[in-house]
Amino acid sequence: MRIGFIGLGRMGTGMASRLCQAGHEVIVYNRSAQRMQPLLDLGARAAMTIGEACAADVVFTMLADDKALEEVAMGAAGMIEHLAADAVHVSCSTVSVALSARLAHAHGQKRQGFVAAPVFGRPDAAASGKLFMVAAGKREFVDKVMPLFEILGQRTFVVSDAPEKANLVKLSGNFMIATVIESLGEAMSLVEKGGVDRHQYLELLTSTLFNVPIYKNYGGMIADRNFEPAGFAAHLGQKDMRLVLSAAEELKVPLPFANILRDRFLNLAAHGGENLDWSAIGSLASKDSAVEA
Amino acid sequence: MRIGFIGLGRMGTGMASRLCQAGHEVIVYNRSAQRMQPLLDLGARAAMTIGEACAADVVFTMLADDKALEEVAMGAAGMIEHLAADAVHVSCSTVSVALSARLAHAHGQKRQGFVAAPVFGRPDAAASGKLFMVAAGKREFVDKVMPLFEILGQRTFVVSDAPEKANLVKLSGNFMIATVIESLGEAMSLVEKGGVDRHQYLELLTSTLFNVPIYKNYGGMIADRNFEPAGFAAHLGQKDMRLVLSAAEELKVPLPFANILRDRFLNLAAHGGENLDWSAIGSLASKDSAVEA
Amino acid sequence: MRIGFIGLGRMGTGMASRLCQAGHEVIVYNRSAQRMQPLLDLGARAAMTIGEACAADVVFTMLADDKALEEVAMGAAGMIEHLAADAVHVSCSTVSVALSARLAHAHGQKRQGFVAAPVFGRPDAAASGKLFMVAAGKREFVDKVMPLFEILGQRTFVVSDAPEKANLVKLSGNFMIATVIESLGEAMSLVEKGGVDRHQYLELLTSTLFNVPIYKNYGGMIADRNFEPAGFAAHLGQKDMRLVLSAAEELKVPLPFANILRDRFLNLAAHGGENLDWSAIGSLASKDSAVEA
Amino acid sequence: MRIGFIGLGRMGTGMASRLCQAGHEVIVYNRSAQRMQPLLDLGARAAMTIGEACAADVVFTMLADDKALEEVAMGAAGMIEHLAADAVHVSCSTVSVALSARLAHAHGQKRQGFVAAPVFGRPDAAASGKLFMVAAGKREFVDKVMPLFEILGQRTFVVSDAPEKANLVKLSGNFMIATVIESLGEAMSLVEKGGVDRHQYLELLTSTLFNVPIYKNYGGMIADRNFEPAGFAAHLGQKDMRLVLSAAEELKVPLPFANILRDRFLNLAAHGGENLDWSAIGSLASKDSAVEA
Repeated sequence: MRIGFIGLGRMGTGMASRLCQAGHEVIVYNRSAQRMQPLLDLGARAAMTIGEACAADVVFTMLADDKALEEVAMGAAGMIEHLAADAVHVSCSTVSVALSARLAHAHGQKRQGFVAAPVFGRPDAAASGKLFMVAAGKREFVDKVMPLFEILGQRTFVVSDAPEKANLVKLSGNFMIATVIESLGEAMSLVEKGGVDRHQYLELLTSTLFNVPIYKNYGGMIADRNFEPAGFAAHLGQKDMRLVLSAAEELKVPLPFANILRDRFLNLAAHGGENLDWSAIGSLASKDSAVEA
Repeated sequence: MRIGFIGLGRMGTGMASRLCQAGHEVIVYNRSAQRMQPLLDLGARAAMTIGEACAADVVFTMLADDKALEEVAMGAAGMIEHLAADAVHVSCSTVSVALSARLAHAHGQKRQGFVAAPVFGRPDAAASGKLFMVAAGKREFVDKVMPLFEILGQRTFVVSDAPEKANLVKLSGNFMIATVIESLGEAMSLVEKGGVDRHQYLELLTSTLFNVPIYKNYGGMIADRNFEPAGFAAHLGQKDMRLVLSAAEELKVPLPFANILRDRFLNLAAHGGENLDWSAIGSLASKDSAVEA
Repeated sequence: MRIGFIGLGRMGTGMASRLCQAGHEVIVYNRSAQRMQPLLDLGARAAMTIGEACAADVVFTMLADDKALEEVAMGAAGMIEHLAADAVHVSCSTVSVALSARLAHAHGQKRQGFVAAPVFGRPDAAASGKLFMVAAGKREFVDKVMPLFEILGQRTFVVSDAPEKANLVKLSGNFMIATVIESLGEAMSLVEKGGVDRHQYLELLTSTLFNVPIYKNYGGMIADRNFEPAGFAAHLGQKDMRLVLSAAEELKVPLPFANILRDRFLNLAAHGGENLDWSAIGSLASKDSAVEA
Repeated sequence: MRIGFIGLGRMGTGMASRLCQAGHEVIVYNRSAQRMQPLLDLGARAAMTIGEACAADVVFTMLADDKALEEVAMGAAGMIEHLAADAVHVSCSTVSVALSARLAHAHGQKRQGFVAAPVFGRPDAAASGKLFMVAAGKREFVDKVMPLFEILGQRTFVVSDAPEKANLVKLSGNFMIATVIESLGEAMSLVEKGGVDRHQYLELLTSTLFNVPIYKNYGGMIADRNFEPAGFAAHLGQKDMRLVLSAAEELKVPLPFANILRDRFLNLAAHGGENLDWSAIGSLASKDSAVEA
């Protein structure tokens, strides 16, 4: 199968590498051309334009946000214009429910396939094929790309035949993670100000009821008060909370925890923390209670 | 060692049974005498008064709330009055930080030992010695009772030599669990109103990032919309949020998530849900968004 | 001065009538033509297109939301295309800060003037020239239209030379009003559930510290539990909270009260209350606490 | 009528002075005796004990908090012990609903009268008889003291025959005022960070929709960023929010705005602001958004 891959950030690079290593013919495109070199070393071909990357059966996109995806897909000389009928666009970016729905419609008008397949996992999981894939789209298109998902991820969850539902699930998953960060931040502030060692407290939590990496890793960053380097930057977390709340507004679902998370990210950004790891919002409860003082 | 045990609810019964089965001489006391029978069948002796149960080296209490513990310990003919010097009161109830501090002081005045040792775990864990014990108190007293903790729990965390710190840790742990319930309630409302099956969504969460019993069990109750029978009643959850917030106020720690949880419990209670399982607060996001409509 | 007026809802009709009655030559335009008749009876002329209404020195717009204003101003055959250089667009709609900034830029490119002048006041204030005008724009353009503001309003506040600042002030004013509604809703629930008559309570508040129409009127609606007819519909309030929060996100300003208001409007809308008066969010605290039960 | 007056802080001094000036025979008591002198100068007599101040037909108390009132009324050698049957205790302090209910019961047992009559107004209003009195109690007792209320206040609202309802109304009133402070704090942060002058913005609000002293005075302090001297100290505001939330918990009324206010006061206190004017919580939105940066 001939595969196009657009967007070679850390996640995209890992994923495209997996596809190359599995023996597929891969044409890569990235706005900054120098990021293509590692893939070329693995046997990929370089596309000079989005259109060239669209000369494929399946084209993946892994981009930073709505704006980037919208330009790549719907801009002049974009994917909608270049993709063949029956070719499938697999959108792995964490983007809005609304954009995903618009893309589904636009591709459908051109008889192109569209599958939303946002992922859970960090760059190392992408590079080692350990992602969790959350996929949605018409059955025939999902079936076509499923063998590729097996290369990219350890498990694929097909949640709907409407592509945008996958984005809703992905965003709500990021919301769940952010609630873990905030709850750890609040609980650690409380016990620490009460005189309990925060590292010992975290050890207690994560060796009993909360014995999973997500609590251990984020809890560790909060206990260490070290939010660099960013595994996932706060400005991306902020964006995701905005997208969660936007989807919730469209669906008329009040989400009190999400509101608090939104305010935490704004507070962090107002004080220059956009590029810290998003777990840095877990430090704000301590700031509010002047724990260090 | 001669052990007194006061408070034979579901948790206390399991714990006292473990102590009997381990061969200790146990004197039990419960306000409603009929709850003592199962223990007597295991070889325990029945105390007719609190004073009789205090004729021991170590006396455990496992009671419903501050009021009950205060009466048993500090009331006329209570433990403070009856306990021998150097005997140790081990308080396993989930009570306020403030009461625990007062008890530590009062026992200290009489040269009695006091160890706070609230537990994590449900009645089945109590009966099988699988609790997690969170203990705090003066070293000599903790050392004395540690062999008993090994009978009761799978692991003991000694967090401080000030007994009330154990209560702070326990309360903050219950806060952590309640945040899990609320976050699941919000996320499930969102995806379900967006057209995604809530059971499938939960399966996705709990087979990936949130692969622990606490997410599976509470998530399952929320997905099933079945909050009976109560493993842990909502009115106890409400009490615990009050105690968390009270400790936070004393320590001057703002806790936005805890505020939301407090309001959820009040809302549930206002509509007659006090005796449902506390995970029933996870249904309120669906109610607010009229998911069933 | 020749004046165009686009948008003849209840507010626009009142304002355009004032301008006619003051002897100005007014050309009116409304998508639904039948709403123009009352103005024609006052001597206005009817424009059949937006372009015709733009053949004027000053053109007012008073439209429902961003979408409507964007179409009228920036659509094909819209105001940007038709307005003469040096003519001034006065935008009185309650729209987003972002759209106002974009309009300022687009008009500037064509050397057209742009003044944002959202208003405070209900339709009766519009019809009687008792509005409060919040204006912003370049000095020369504001000066040009100030005599018209004196016809429309009892007072004009010029807050900046950047038009979008007027929209920010207007939105924040609506936020202030919504906080009054919510605070009354909460306080009335509390005292009523405690056994105090809510009308008597409101009388106490509004004859002492809160002796202003905004507390009396909204408080009266909440006490009467009567939210029809809508003076200002809940879906517009919901829109305004979205715009406030959107401006706040852009500026990185956490706003905890605004978050709660947002959730109240979503809750109301989820239960079919979009067309009630926006003070209906003041009934939700009673619902949460089951006051009527 | 012979009147006892216990508690000569700034409010109590003003009120007792009014009673002296009106020609009543007043016996004053204050823990710190030197505060009695100004009243003695007006013709009052000094009581050396609470019991002496109770040798009267009506005894007012105006004390700082629950603890002080409980000691004065229910302590050994307190009012319950000393007051004659049919004498009336008029409690003007801002205390908890629960304490007021307990006092009503205790006085009733001794056939003593009890009227709760918390007040709205600052010390200058107390000294000039311009308070608003919120009274509740049995009709016969309220009738007996009403002539005195007419000396103290510009208007009396009798809200119930159950004394504690007056405390509920008073506390909810303080909640209303605190919401004004927070809403001003949030709105001013937003517009100021957006580039609008905060003093000009406040002038706009308070000369239009919010034309009342409460918005002007607190808004002015927030705009000036000057919270000293404290007219009403933040630690008292914090106490009142605790009492509001405590009453709300008892009545099962979720109050989202009150939760936010509580956290604001805790944040302020954690940073050493307990003795600032309570309007200082209105500066926290600016802090969260780093407006000054």
